Amino acid sequence: MDDRTGQRTVAETAPRRPENRYGNRPTMKDVAARAGVGLKTVSRVVNGEPGVTPDTERRVQEAIEALGFRRNDSARVLRKGRTASIGLVLEDLADPFYGPLSRAVEEVARAHGALLINGSSAEDPDREQELVLALCARRVDGLVVIPAGDDHRYLEPEIAAGVATVFVDRPAGKIDADVVLSDSFGGARDGVAHLIAHGHRRIGFIGDQPRIHTAIERLRGYRAAMEDAGIELSESWVSLGATGPERVQAAATAMITGPEPVTAIFAGNNRVTVTVVRVLADHERPVALVGFDDIELADLLGITVVAQDAAALGRTAAERLFRHLDGAEEAPARIELRTALIPRGSGEIPPA
Amino acid sequence: MDDRTGQRTVAETAPRRPENRYGNRPTMKDVAARAGVGLKTVSRVVNGEPGVTPDTERRVQEAIEALGFRRNDSARVLRKGRTASIGLVLEDLADPFYGPLSRAVEEVARAHGALLINGSSAEDPDREQELVLALCARRVDGLVVIPAGDDHRYLEPEIAAGVATVFVDRPAGKIDADVVLSDSFGGARDGVAHLIAHGHRRIGFIGDQPRIHTAIERLRGYRAAMEDAGIELSESWVSLGATGPERVQAAATAMITGPEPVTAIFAGNNRVTVTVVRVLADHERPVALVGFDDIELADLLGITVVAQDAAALGRTAAERLFRHLDGAEEAPARIELRTALIPRGSGEIPPA
Repeated sequence: MDDRTGQRTVAETAPRRPENRYGNRPTMKDVAARAGVGLKTVSRVVNGEPGVTPDTERRVQEAIEALGFRRNDSARVLRKGRTASIGLVLEDLADPFYGPLSRAVEEVARAHGALLINGSSAEDPDREQELVLALCARRVDGLVVIPAGDDHRYLEPEIAAGVATVFVDRPAGKIDADVVLSDSFGGARDGVAHLIAHGHRRIGFIGDQPRIHTAIERLRGYRAAMEDAGIELSESWVSLGATGPERVQAAATAMITGPEPVTAIFAGNNRVTVTVVRVLADHERPVALVGFDDIELADLLGITVVAQDAAALGRTAAERLFRHLDGAEEAPARIELRTALIPRGSGEIPPA
Repeated sequence: MDDRTGQRTVAETAPRRPENRYGNRPTMKDVAARAGVGLKTVSRVVNGEPGVTPDTERRVQEAIEALGFRRNDSARVLRKGRTASIGLVLEDLADPFYGPLSRAVEEVARAHGALLINGSSAEDPDREQELVLALCARRVDGLVVIPAGDDHRYLEPEIAAGVATVFVDRPAGKIDADVVLSDSFGGARDGVAHLIAHGHRRIGFIGDQPRIHTAIERLRGYRAAMEDAGIELSESWVSLGATGPERVQAAATAMITGPEPVTAIFAGNNRVTVTVVRVLADHERPVALVGFDDIELADLLGITVVAQDAAALGRTAAERLFRHLDGAEEAPARIELRTALIPRGSGEIPPA
């Protein structure tokens, strides 16, 4: 743990294919050597220029395929006077959490003279893959991805071919790749421990869908805090699912009016908190609340939160991406940023 | 006014250069005719292929320049198997107002198989121009622009060459171009009239910088409502400038504690409202407030707002853009969307 940056680097693992990663990708020279032809011939084939026999072209194409060679579009773009670009794949452009994150990525990209190509997966793994591959086909120099899916092997050929990729908010699935995330487990554990310290024992947890990494990590933090305090859980206190208002409203209402009513709720993200606050405003008996993620105007409403630094997530991910693009050879790492508990009233209400 | 869509089309003006707009741009055939050469020769020059004498190349280049010819990159992109793209230039990626607007533009682009390239001007006209031209150099098929500057003649060659462009939220300066905006004048007039109807006569207006179109339109709406009610303004009641917390806090504090203290404030946008709400929360005497733009959780804080439909702005602009890209020949239009006054308490407080 480095106290100056609030970052820690966990599980620095060796890359699986070091010879193909980032700064070390195959060059035209490698293709020429493998195909047994001159550099100019490879250049002709790559650029679709005439003057190459079909047999030679086939040999060059085979070498390109075998080596995973990709034209250095960054350099090509520069030669053509075009701007470099990086892709940013979010879950939802309209979620306020991603606003400061996007802006931070854009500022870093801008400082490196690159444009930002943005898109959202709408939490759909197929749409994520479609968008990522469209960005690769569009020859982005690198990708910052908030993944919706849990299997990113489809990205392996692109990463091997030199598309620098950094995941943010959630780790990649089934591949080694950089990830920058908040300490969801520790943040949720701190938030729930805060409620326990204020006398609560019947505490509900409302989180996002169970296939989302942060939802599971925060649930794990909730369970750890409860276990640390020796509290036996009732499964009626835990609800995971879509974070739209209808589902969250039903879950919160069931928890506070059920046979074992909770005296406090831990909300798993900003979308959940917004709806729970509305439910509790209409409820007679006071119920304590701590929410993961800070929210605009939460100070005026007295909402206690576990805040993550969305701008720092974006900045850290983008800076790491450009270090790769600048040729740094770093093994894939997991970088966790700390969260901060901000008491504002709702988390300090004693049990009714 | 069309009641089904809530839209009205104002000032349908004739384009200045109809022969060069959108669906009617110069073709390779036009270049060939002007240069007195064959089509194949133009194609060779455009694609940098050999077999053209320097003199012929010069003539073709002159014809290209004179006609404002641009290779049809959309078709080229399609042939190369790449994805089409449109550019979206915002003022600030982190402003929650732009979240739903961006998402709406993305959904329309996605439905047309196009990617979204995003960037922000940070309210700096030079940065806007730099970003727009970088997007054009990157061969976007079209642009949706929330302008920071008030002179867009730098875009004329691009528009003439076929880059479909729709402005949103604020009109273009010094060029004829499509614009989709909210009725800022009418919305502000309604909001201020609402305060007057609740007995206020000393009403403050805190708005954005005076070079921003919406700031001026909303101020005009404020003045019109005051004049309609026969109220003589004190200039100490009007404050325009940056919408950062420090400036707005100082302006609001001066208005409510000055020699002619206001009993109500009209806040010119969401950034202003957020700070004014904080200032009023710390103030002893109740002061009424109506804010332009809706804000998340404003319902729970009882903030009366004049809401614009950010998603409809983005959707309308993007749909118009793709109609142009699909070859529709429509003259540049100004499309205004209506606003909605939502009373929630703060705007209904009587004068102290």
